[in-house]
Amino acid sequence: MRPKICLFGDSITEESFSNGGWGASLANHFSRTADIVVRGYSGYNTRWAVKVLDKVFPAVDEAAPVAVTVFFGANDSCLHDRYAAFQHVPLDEYKDNLRSIFTFLKKRWETTVILFITPPPIDEAGRLMHPYIENPSGLPERTNEAAGAYAKACVDVARECETPVVDMWTKMQEFSDWKNSCLSDGLHLAQGGNRIVFEEVVKKLKEVGVSLELLPVDLPLFSEINPKDPLKSFEN
Amino acid sequence: MRPKICLFGDSITEESFSNGGWGASLANHFSRTADIVVRGYSGYNTRWAVKVLDKVFPAVDEAAPVAVTVFFGANDSCLHDRYAAFQHVPLDEYKDNLRSIFTFLKKRWETTVILFITPPPIDEAGRLMHPYIENPSGLPERTNEAAGAYAKACVDVARECETPVVDMWTKMQEFSDWKNSCLSDGLHLAQGGNRIVFEEVVKKLKEVGVSLELLPVDLPLFSEINPKDPLKSFEN
Repeated sequence: MRPKICLFGDSITEESFSNGGWGASLANHFSRTADIVVRGYSGYNTRWAVKVLDKVFPAVDEAAPVAVTVFFGANDSCLHDRYAAFQHVPLDEYKDNLRSIFTFLKKRWETTVILFITPPPIDEAGRLMHPYIENPSGLPERTNEAAGAYAKACVDVARECETPVVDMWTKMQEFSDWKNSCLSDGLHLAQGGNRIVFEEVVKKLKEVGVSLELLPVDLPLFSEINPKDPLKSFEN
Repeated sequence: MRPKICLFGDSITEESFSNGGWGASLANHFSRTADIVVRGYSGYNTRWAVKVLDKVFPAVDEAAPVAVTVFFGANDSCLHDRYAAFQHVPLDEYKDNLRSIFTFLKKRWETTVILFITPPPIDEAGRLMHPYIENPSGLPERTNEAAGAYAKACVDVARECETPVVDMWTKMQEFSDWKNSCLSDGLHLAQGGNRIVFEEVVKKLKEVGVSLELLPVDLPLFSEINPKDPLKSFEN
């Protein structure tokens, strides 16, 4: 059975199979070695995520995934006094919820790598240009400062749980044109952002032993099949 | 449990999660409704495919996939006297092998939709420009005429099995610039080819009842969550 890597998160995970998306790139990268299973739920914060853990990861007798990415915070960090306030989750509760998600997954599958991913940075001008509902206030519903606080909290919880983490908030801002190259509407990922998430996830998974070099390949590769006796490869 | 759609085939299936690939597009289309499971094996013909059916679709107690695409023929139709002769499978055996794959899958999962996809057309000039090994003969290892014969055979077997089929060989050639817009090296799919496979597969699956309209959505959609009482959506 081919192992699985599950992607659990919000819209940035749900949309990860759109053109050039980081989920599709992972599926392409792990071709013949791992199945990529998407469990992205647009708009969800960690409070709602905790409520649905049993349904997202049902207790059936399935093989443990080799890894699960946990990519929340973009909705939790909505400001409490702007139009998306109903998605807001206070910082301390966000940390508690991440701990609960980690504990749930580790209890279900002891050996599975849990990889946290922090929320990406926010381009506030982009958010004002592309509001999700009418926004006469002239104020963005998300700020980069708030996203940064949630990103730091996510890194802190990962350290506490001794589990790997990709700090997208910091990583993306290393690129001078991140607002345009990484983001499409001030929040969701453009081509550049998708590439960074893909590359960072592959790198981090490799550090913890989930890599093309270590995963077995499903069935003989074409390059291993002897043109003079192809069926010999299929004898076992 | 979210239902699955399996993609079984050769490199055109294995590579279907590369940028703009038809597999990734299916995963994006069936977001929140079905998991797309890739079982593409680069270079494989139906003779080799038949040998590995038990490994590709192991007899574990898993839920039946809602659909399996069977997309072979691009390698079977390699000419028997050119450099890729070891991949060639005679036309009658190709038909028998497709019947065996169909019977195997129907025996395993009676209700699963088996969707055949014919090999795409071949641009012989493209094949000569991009040979997979040194090819001093000056002759292409695949021809459009041969691909057409295998496509017709695939359609015939589908009719005989009373199972749906997408005739990519015919469909792509409806576009006047198919050699450039649909193919990248005379055989594999460029952006246009990927889009056609995606659109035709979605259309054909819809005709047999596998569609966004009929598949249940996994967990409440953001648009269904009441901003005034979000947790109410998660009570059950």
